[in-house]
Amino acid sequence: MLYLIGLGLSYESDITVRGLEVVKKCKRVYLEAYTSILMAADKESLEKFYGREVILADRELVETGSDEILADAQTEDIAFLVVGDPFGATTHTDLIIRARELKIKVEAIHNASVMNAVGACGLQLYQFGQTVSLVFFTDSWKPDSFYNKVMENRKIGLHTLLLLDIKVKEQSIENMARGRLIYEPPRYMDIATACQQLLEIEDLRQEQAYTPNTPCVAVSRLGSPSQTFKAGTLKELSEYDSGEPLHSLVMLGRQVHDLELEYLYQYVDDQEKFRKFVEEDQEFFKPPPYVPPEENMSDDE
Amino acid sequence: MLYLIGLGLSYESDITVRGLEVVKKCKRVYLEAYTSILMAADKESLEKFYGREVILADRELVETGSDEILADAQTEDIAFLVVGDPFGATTHTDLIIRARELKIKVEAIHNASVMNAVGACGLQLYQFGQTVSLVFFTDSWKPDSFYNKVMENRKIGLHTLLLLDIKVKEQSIENMARGRLIYEPPRYMDIATACQQLLEIEDLRQEQAYTPNTPCVAVSRLGSPSQTFKAGTLKELSEYDSGEPLHSLVMLGRQVHDLELEYLYQYVDDQEKFRKFVEEDQEFFKPPPYVPPEENMSDDE
Repeated sequence: MLYLIGLGLSYESDITVRGLEVVKKCKRVYLEAYTSILMAADKESLEKFYGREVILADRELVETGSDEILADAQTEDIAFLVVGDPFGATTHTDLIIRARELKIKVEAIHNASVMNAVGACGLQLYQFGQTVSLVFFTDSWKPDSFYNKVMENRKIGLHTLLLLDIKVKEQSIENMARGRLIYEPPRYMDIATACQQLLEIEDLRQEQAYTPNTPCVAVSRLGSPSQTFKAGTLKELSEYDSGEPLHSLVMLGRQVHDLELEYLYQYVDDQEKFRKFVEEDQEFFKPPPYVPPEENMSDDE
Repeated sequence: MLYLIGLGLSYESDITVRGLEVVKKCKRVYLEAYTSILMAADKESLEKFYGREVILADRELVETGSDEILADAQTEDIAFLVVGDPFGATTHTDLIIRARELKIKVEAIHNASVMNAVGACGLQLYQFGQTVSLVFFTDSWKPDSFYNKVMENRKIGLHTLLLLDIKVKEQSIENMARGRLIYEPPRYMDIATACQQLLEIEDLRQEQAYTPNTPCVAVSRLGSPSQTFKAGTLKELSEYDSGEPLHSLVMLGRQVHDLELEYLYQYVDDQEKFRKFVEEDQEFFKPPPYVPPEENMSDDE
């Protein structure tokens, strides 16, 4: 049996009781260690907490060495630990499909991930549209596919969760070219960088998917002892010192409720000013453009 | 301190290790018992698992008796247990705001909820739009606010998670009128009812937010020992026997990926037929209508 076990967000003890029981009985325990990190724990503290060895699984092992992970899983129990939930933003569908091909049973033990725990900021989860990812820009590579998605969400009044880039065990272009297995120090995108990149793309595109005054919520170290929320405009947060990783950003949609707003006030510098920015931002995409279905579409088309 | 503790989806042991530690040390432990249920546990089995008394908190206690829940929480630890995550589809913002007014510290211990665990069906979480709720229709009351939201999601190609109604401790209109505290047996909407209601509204509205042939995934008893997925068209699933509760439904958006589709094939009766329905459904809202922002909108407006 292959067990996919979510570790939650921060502490060793964020694993579920059932997850821990399974970890203790498995023959091998892998920790997926390239799409996220557990903020208040590491391999050593996990090994101590579990009372057993944990094998780090980097991208290479998961993507090209899945048969190594799955070896003997027809008859033995293997655990694959994932920060957050096993079916979070990054899914491991490939591994599961491969397991099924090999006639290995798969069971998931779920846990919190940023995708649902972000509700802790006070914005209602059912008011979120599609989730987008923001990757580190380079001088020559500034992918902006998030821009249309944010626009789509905001057109229908929804909030957007933006997941910020994490670079773990990446090689420099020079080291890669020379085939040297030297890895750069890990990098985690902070709130200021995310907001600056958003503003840079708005400056280029000028389609007003959002403006420098669009209200956002900085979500820092969600679920950890030092969890912090900060609400402000994109411009304000582009100068915000968000501290240690991990961070996510939420951009508000027009349909923000009074109760959501009241909840956010505890995270703003100036309540009146923030309300004013929210009200100004609500003028965009108002009313939500309604496009009736085209007349030539029908069931039997 | 007020601890809001997520219980996850099914088993007693789906609580996190940290959550369990907190439950054991709290002076009083409330279980929110009206928005969802834990599928493989009840009050008695939880009390046995925790080794302590659990107080059931019905809607009345939470909404009008929050000061009773919060009594002494300035100096004592109180636990408020919520099925799923404390910030799931139903949030307890009122309770938290009231706690803050009373100068009571609040900490959340997160867990999986349907909002993130639904990824287990094989559809990518970041491809989901806003979540909608479907309530039981009566002869005179058929609320259809979900319809526009499903339409909005599908216009931009996104999947929709539909949460299905749960009625716990509800009075009949007659008993309510006569002031008799007699409650109806709990009711949980099943997949067939949900699909029939969806088809009924499409029949009335005729705006083709979806059609009888739109592909959906029935999500039954997510995270429980008898978890089941079934993929088919709305029409097919309107005759599907989904078994014991709880259920949710996912309606596919146009942007379904091949990998998602491949994953869904294990849940369909006829792979070729299902693919054909997916491809036909993709003709709707294609290409996603792009409406540029109005020209008279600007930052300083």
